[in-house]
Amino acid sequence: MYKKLILGDPIDTEAILCEVPAETTESSFTGVEKSVSFLKDFTICRKGLETKPAKENTREACTADEPTGEIILTRTLRGRELVYGLGETLRGINKRGWIYVSNNADDPNHTEDKRSLYASQNFLLLFGDGAAQALFVDVPGKVTFDVGYSELKTLEIRIASADAALYYAESEDPLLLIREFRSLIGRSYQPPQWAFGFGQSRWGYKTAADIREVADRYAEAGIPLSMIYLDIDYMDHYKDFTIDEKAFPDFPDFVAEMKERGIRLIPIIDAGVKMEKGYPVYEEGVKGDFFCKKEDGTDLVAAVWPGRVHFPDFLKKETRDWFGEKYRFLTEQGIEGFWNDMNEPAIFYTEDHLREVFEELDRFKEMEEMDIWSFFAFQDLTGSINNRPEDYRTFFHEYKGQRLRHDQVHNLYGYYMTRAAGEKLRDLVPGGEYLLFSRASYVGMHRYGGIWTGDNKSWWSHLLLNLQQLPALNMCGFLFCGADTGGFGGDCTEDLMLRWLAVSIFTPLFRNHAALGTRNQELYRFEQTDTFRNLIRLRYALIPYLYDTFTRAAEENDLIFTPLALAYPSDERARTVEDQLLVGEALMIAPVYTQNAAGRYVYLPEDMTLYRFRSVTDYDVIPLTAGDHYVSLATSEVAIYVRPGYSLEVSGEEFSITAN
Amino acid sequence: MYKKLILGDPIDTEAILCEVPAETTESSFTGVEKSVSFLKDFTICRKGLETKPAKENTREACTADEPTGEIILTRTLRGRELVYGLGETLRGINKRGWIYVSNNADDPNHTEDKRSLYASQNFLLLFGDGAAQALFVDVPGKVTFDVGYSELKTLEIRIASADAALYYAESEDPLLLIREFRSLIGRSYQPPQWAFGFGQSRWGYKTAADIREVADRYAEAGIPLSMIYLDIDYMDHYKDFTIDEKAFPDFPDFVAEMKERGIRLIPIIDAGVKMEKGYPVYEEGVKGDFFCKKEDGTDLVAAVWPGRVHFPDFLKKETRDWFGEKYRFLTEQGIEGFWNDMNEPAIFYTEDHLREVFEELDRFKEMEEMDIWSFFAFQDLTGSINNRPEDYRTFFHEYKGQRLRHDQVHNLYGYYMTRAAGEKLRDLVPGGEYLLFSRASYVGMHRYGGIWTGDNKSWWSHLLLNLQQLPALNMCGFLFCGADTGGFGGDCTEDLMLRWLAVSIFTPLFRNHAALGTRNQELYRFEQTDTFRNLIRLRYALIPYLYDTFTRAAEENDLIFTPLALAYPSDERARTVEDQLLVGEALMIAPVYTQNAAGRYVYLPEDMTLYRFRSVTDYDVIPLTAGDHYVSLATSEVAIYVRPGYSLEVSGEEFSITAN
Repeated sequence: MYKKLILGDPIDTEAILCEVPAETTESSFTGVEKSVSFLKDFTICRKGLETKPAKENTREACTADEPTGEIILTRTLRGRELVYGLGETLRGINKRGWIYVSNNADDPNHTEDKRSLYASQNFLLLFGDGAAQALFVDVPGKVTFDVGYSELKTLEIRIASADAALYYAESEDPLLLIREFRSLIGRSYQPPQWAFGFGQSRWGYKTAADIREVADRYAEAGIPLSMIYLDIDYMDHYKDFTIDEKAFPDFPDFVAEMKERGIRLIPIIDAGVKMEKGYPVYEEGVKGDFFCKKEDGTDLVAAVWPGRVHFPDFLKKETRDWFGEKYRFLTEQGIEGFWNDMNEPAIFYTEDHLREVFEELDRFKEMEEMDIWSFFAFQDLTGSINNRPEDYRTFFHEYKGQRLRHDQVHNLYGYYMTRAAGEKLRDLVPGGEYLLFSRASYVGMHRYGGIWTGDNKSWWSHLLLNLQQLPALNMCGFLFCGADTGGFGGDCTEDLMLRWLAVSIFTPLFRNHAALGTRNQELYRFEQTDTFRNLIRLRYALIPYLYDTFTRAAEENDLIFTPLALAYPSDERARTVEDQLLVGEALMIAPVYTQNAAGRYVYLPEDMTLYRFRSVTDYDVIPLTAGDHYVSLATSEVAIYVRPGYSLEVSGEEFSITAN
Repeated sequence: MYKKLILGDPIDTEAILCEVPAETTESSFTGVEKSVSFLKDFTICRKGLETKPAKENTREACTADEPTGEIILTRTLRGRELVYGLGETLRGINKRGWIYVSNNADDPNHTEDKRSLYASQNFLLLFGDGAAQALFVDVPGKVTFDVGYSELKTLEIRIASADAALYYAESEDPLLLIREFRSLIGRSYQPPQWAFGFGQSRWGYKTAADIREVADRYAEAGIPLSMIYLDIDYMDHYKDFTIDEKAFPDFPDFVAEMKERGIRLIPIIDAGVKMEKGYPVYEEGVKGDFFCKKEDGTDLVAAVWPGRVHFPDFLKKETRDWFGEKYRFLTEQGIEGFWNDMNEPAIFYTEDHLREVFEELDRFKEMEEMDIWSFFAFQDLTGSINNRPEDYRTFFHEYKGQRLRHDQVHNLYGYYMTRAAGEKLRDLVPGGEYLLFSRASYVGMHRYGGIWTGDNKSWWSHLLLNLQQLPALNMCGFLFCGADTGGFGGDCTEDLMLRWLAVSIFTPLFRNHAALGTRNQELYRFEQTDTFRNLIRLRYALIPYLYDTFTRAAEENDLIFTPLALAYPSDERARTVEDQLLVGEALMIAPVYTQNAAGRYVYLPEDMTLYRFRSVTDYDVIPLTAGDHYVSLATSEVAIYVRPGYSLEVSGEEFSITAN
């Protein structure tokens, strides 16, 4: 049902797996404005072609600061129309009223005014007022979605390129549009069932003793734990595919010891490869010509955690084969899961620009008296070195026989890093049962791994954001996902952790993670150990249902998390509910996400049965009629609403949730 | 009823106006832990006295980085106890679950994890589980309130000084504790009635033509406007008490012209005085010895907007008399109102520290290859120049015959600047009818002017924060207050502005203000001009009620904005309502503060009549019974809930709200 519109000569991202014949190929279309038959509500404007570089076999703009050419799609938003989608973005489930920029960004301050997060998932679903429409903008460079931000009733999509592949479909049934899109992009990655357990992480576990302490204290507290994550500290000077052997002597034995205790270790892998003579990964990379190059043909020198690094050119098949094989270093030691990080890629600085900064600093130094504007210029200069847009235009990839400037394929980088890992881990991990997730992503990556939603904060607003991001991620094929429970940055309070758990116990990826320097937030650090134990056991009781739901969603291209507006399309009130979700077919959640609240309002589109759990075996069962309810809920309680036609039964420490 | 506990030799802040005899004076109390009879639930620990400097007539720590001595008050929070107060702080009305630091801060990023804003208003009210208790910590240096943050059930107050004056009272009636506290601190500042009109502001109106354009476009749109604010651009190079005469020729005529049109101009005054030979304010200040001094007796050199400045020592009466008189320069030209800004004081840099920074930069420059830790050190060095805690310990005040290191009286600075202005404006403005408000504040300042809540953002969460801050500000005597409607930083969308107006039309200070570089947010910039006109007219219709309510609150030490937990103490559900407020005696508001919402849930502790206004003359009247309601509310509507025993009548463009 999806139709494809090709404008110019777009980059094949391999987001779409199957062959979709182009309904319209408009490679020569240069009109200022044009309507395309099947994209009937949109106006398309394509411009800037005259500045397109003529060089053979390359797409880079010769001197332009911005990519050449632009495509602008405009459409009037219908009065009551809802706009869903866009994957991992800020704000609510309904994207109306803000502007979103697909431009994978290493920015840990996810405040309401931001436009970019770590992911670019350019799928939009418009529905709820007339026929539903879906659009996938398959462009790996910058794409801006102004969804009624500039003008309340106008959708404007700006593609920073004259070349684009657009996929469009319409139907009376928005869920059908999602399923069909998912069938185009291919089956979602599914991790082994053990990956549905609870994981503990913290940047700052430095030694095997630190890890053992975490395991011991969880065991003492009687709180189940299935994974401990290893952040950058486990490596030798942050070098990928190394172990700090002083801190982790006899690593394979340690991995086995932990696995014996039911805990798998999940190490991080970063995108940048440290430049260091004698470090095999570096030397192989140089020798194999596997790194991203500057215009002069030399390898880009950037800096991240290990100091100066090269970035593997993951868009090159040869690089992927080589880098993917490197994971063997860890799988041979018993590791079965990984998280790929810093793969937007994050850049602390590039060598070239840092040199420019220091040259400019001399100019300030020489000033007799710095005026306030010079001071501001000084602050701008020193304060904008990280993740500098200009730096992303200084290096190149080799992709499908073309040389591509990085910014034009920026949003593919994390995708292709994770693809490199996923394609090899199928063979490297016994039974192909690997756990893998990434920070940066693009549609297509969902076939190789999941994602976590990056460096969030210990904010109540991010607990709600966690909930609101889930349906849009599902739409784009990302089924294995979750947020850092309790928040990564900032200091988590006990009540926030409790309320957050009451959401996270439903997300496939379930991890407590925190940054160096923040308050310790392992569950045994807080006072109410019994309550935390009860909540985590609830998660384990839910795993059979969650795993089944996941498997069916992967097989049938369904959502795990469904907003009420999609599940109850004729229910007027359900349209605007942004803080409740269906989880699979049988359950609804409606968590508390405000501090000091004693409960919350819940809207039931149909009669449901509220299970208010204090533990797997201590709960109330309250039949509720369709309509509005104020539901009291202590921080020690989890509410599960069971839909009519389903029943929840408790047997021992397990739930059985079945259709009647 | 308030009892006073003196520990050591506290600084008299003049927050408390009347004489409260000290019930207990514990000047020699040095025990590690002690209970004081009337502070029965608290444990008091006073320590660090041995390091107190012996110097005559000075309180400064000789070499210590932190102030000497510390007082720690600890109290168990009762299970169901609510903790209100603390004035302008983050998070909800109930302060439980977070940590707040009274340390006036120029920080424009008011995210949930912050601990300090621009104000320090150390009044706490504990109630709702047993007898209510109130505590005022009258200490002008740093005070930390850990309200169940470290441990859910522990209140810990850390005073960064061995000297403190504490005021404590208890009663069955928490509102009585508020009224009594207010009677101690003196009658609140009340502005003239015209100051209840709507004001437009923006950093970036540079000329009289810019101002005229704003007035013209509001007039064309038919949207009433009573004030236009002049941000720093109106001055000659940001020098206080100057006018950029090129941009504003014939300023008195311009002021008169605008007043003729019903619009008063309200200029900003900043704390720092530009160092510039020939600039009279600077020369008088040096000659009169009016500026803050470093330890060596020379005037502190800091930098803010005008470049290098001295800070007037507002704690000195002579300085206040001199600086207050300077406002005459503008009152003589017809100005009747001011806003005092940058008076934490904000410091972009101090000359001394900037010199150190540049010396250290040489060290980085000399490095052959910078490793990643050196790079982080470089970023820390260049990124932490503004508002640096160490800088606040390098200068001194003269206060009541003592030399005081700035950090020990830091929270008085904005208070005394505004006092300097207020005490003179009573005479300088005809009839004493001046408008004055400040960014930084401390209890006591409420007698001289109001406040706005500083540089907020165009975030939906800040719309809710605006509402939640109001009751605590009222408790501390700040009746004339409001937030920058639409948000100062960030880009405001039309729907956010509409929803924000539906709150701001009830706040005494009602101003639309935005930062340079953000999206234009004057009301005529948006599409729905009719709706904006209707909303602003609603405000004007409300003014008689708001002004009466204000006057009564000032006279009778009452709140204007009352949380439901205080108004309905025996109502279990009212205890946790954090998004509804009584406005005066007759009205309740329950605004929508989430994007794309079509309405919201409202809890009515008693029967009320909902007036849903689309304009002053177009509205629904809907009687509602006590209990829970989902109320639909379009962005073009304002809901007012009228309490039983009161009636709202519309006559022409005015509301009459009276007791039956």
